[in-house]
Amino acid sequence: MSDAVPMDALPTLAQVRDAAARIAPHAVVTPVLRSAVLDALAGTELHFKCENLQRGGAFKFRGACNAVWSLTDEEAARGAVTHSSGNHGNALALAAATRGIPAHVVVPEGAVQAKLDAIVRAGGTLHRCAPSQAAREAMCAEVQARTGAVLVHPYADTRVMAGQGTVALELLGQVPGLDALVTPVGGGGLAAGVATTAHGIDPSLGLFGAEPQGADDAARSLRAGERVTDVVPDTVCDGLRALVGLRNLGALREHRVDVVTVSDAETVAAMRLLWQELKQVVEVSSATVFAAVLKEPAHFAGRRVGLVLTGGNVDLDALPW
Amino acid sequence: MSDAVPMDALPTLAQVRDAAARIAPHAVVTPVLRSAVLDALAGTELHFKCENLQRGGAFKFRGACNAVWSLTDEEAARGAVTHSSGNHGNALALAAATRGIPAHVVVPEGAVQAKLDAIVRAGGTLHRCAPSQAAREAMCAEVQARTGAVLVHPYADTRVMAGQGTVALELLGQVPGLDALVTPVGGGGLAAGVATTAHGIDPSLGLFGAEPQGADDAARSLRAGERVTDVVPDTVCDGLRALVGLRNLGALREHRVDVVTVSDAETVAAMRLLWQELKQVVEVSSATVFAAVLKEPAHFAGRRVGLVLTGGNVDLDALPW
Repeated sequence: MSDAVPMDALPTLAQVRDAAARIAPHAVVTPVLRSAVLDALAGTELHFKCENLQRGGAFKFRGACNAVWSLTDEEAARGAVTHSSGNHGNALALAAATRGIPAHVVVPEGAVQAKLDAIVRAGGTLHRCAPSQAAREAMCAEVQARTGAVLVHPYADTRVMAGQGTVALELLGQVPGLDALVTPVGGGGLAAGVATTAHGIDPSLGLFGAEPQGADDAARSLRAGERVTDVVPDTVCDGLRALVGLRNLGALREHRVDVVTVSDAETVAAMRLLWQELKQVVEVSSATVFAAVLKEPAHFAGRRVGLVLTGGNVDLDALPW
Repeated sequence: MSDAVPMDALPTLAQVRDAAARIAPHAVVTPVLRSAVLDALAGTELHFKCENLQRGGAFKFRGACNAVWSLTDEEAARGAVTHSSGNHGNALALAAATRGIPAHVVVPEGAVQAKLDAIVRAGGTLHRCAPSQAAREAMCAEVQARTGAVLVHPYADTRVMAGQGTVALELLGQVPGLDALVTPVGGGGLAAGVATTAHGIDPSLGLFGAEPQGADDAARSLRAGERVTDVVPDTVCDGLRALVGLRNLGALREHRVDVVTVSDAETVAAMRLLWQELKQVVEVSSATVFAAVLKEPAHFAGRRVGLVLTGGNVDLDALPW
């Protein structure tokens, strides 16, 4: 990537295709599942892209893997670093392991032990910090300075967005004739990657985002015409609490992504239906997409809809129902 | 089927191939999933055939669908009848609906309401009886006499066994080079269908059954050299409490199926791992196959193993951990 291009520029379709080739030896081509019962409930035709079956249990592996394999040999030798207490940290550790390079993951105090264990199992090195954005960034900068590791931001990174965009490339190849796509919106790495990819392939596709009401900064930002940053997240969807990135938001606006907000109760009910009928273990953040379809049937009636189920890393001892 | 052939004769490979063609318009070609974590735990290469994703949430649809579509038009017009409080009843109702014919399902008092609701939703007619084998058979005979409906026994029926055998046909086509197959053993419809199919294709395949210690009549019968019928089932595996059928047992013996017994604790632990790592909602009976592999690693080391995950119909409010 040339120095003249900002690291968080939106990816082009060509970059997404390159990413797909780059990650192909390492990533899972995840299946697309259907359910007659869920179709009947939604009154439309639903195609669920099961990224809960991706390596590491979440789509995050795509972006992390593309970033790791985009590094020059010299960069790679110094390793990669990120801050994440969730799926991205684990994804980076797994991706780094595929290239045999170090992964440093900055995690705030209070992160879930099971997730930390997974990062260590994947070969990552943990760096603890205080649970604030400032402390995370400071620790990240310190690790970068000390090790020379390359920062791989969870969503505001072109390589990561291009990797996440491969979900759309793959889904549109698996299910010809889709009319609309729905992804959750957190930091916006997936939503932006999918939007640029999908419209690069078919500009007539309807694009939707699903956002928790308790972390609705993207919906508010689109309404306000500028990035709203004073949202204090309050939602059970632990994967969707990040504020949407500036360029990610730009992609949502440019591609006219319609963001539907859903309550936690609606999301938990949708999650339960996905477990019961689709037989998939998906995490609560993933269920926002199905909750959005159930909430706004008029948006989806008579359309063939692709929904990205983003991950399946759950604590089986603390189910939300 | 000629009158000279007993209705519970073992199916031939040709009958299984016919069944596959017959059910193809209605059944799901279920995916085969893998997990690096589970492979590492088992010390071998595992391929999970996900019949939890079959229509109706269980492999039972295959056998029921083959039976329903094997009927002559005249037979079909009178409908089909069975006794089952579990997945076979629902499968028969769903299969009958694909042909637009009546399905009668005899269910014992005390059956789980959610399962009865599913049968009714599929268009089946419920007939209640006392919770004993004698009462079930009497009610079944009464419905047959009154309606002329054809009995479709859950496992001691050639058409049903042939339908269940299509699981093996499909799996062996999806994953070339498998060395061994593992199925749960209840009444033995699946185990017998899979054994005759698998050895029809490749006589060198190692065949294994998984049976709960608390319903180990097949294992005991194979040891004793005759069918043991005095086992009173005591296991959390509600799908595996039936006594193995006489001809089903004959198939296990003929094909040298090695039956591994597993405790409920081992099965529940295996179920939890399947949910956590494979991200599949599977019912407890399904997990016996993975429990068996973990229990007897020497049987499976260095082999490519296909495991049939039989179903995913669970009560999410009553998980066994």
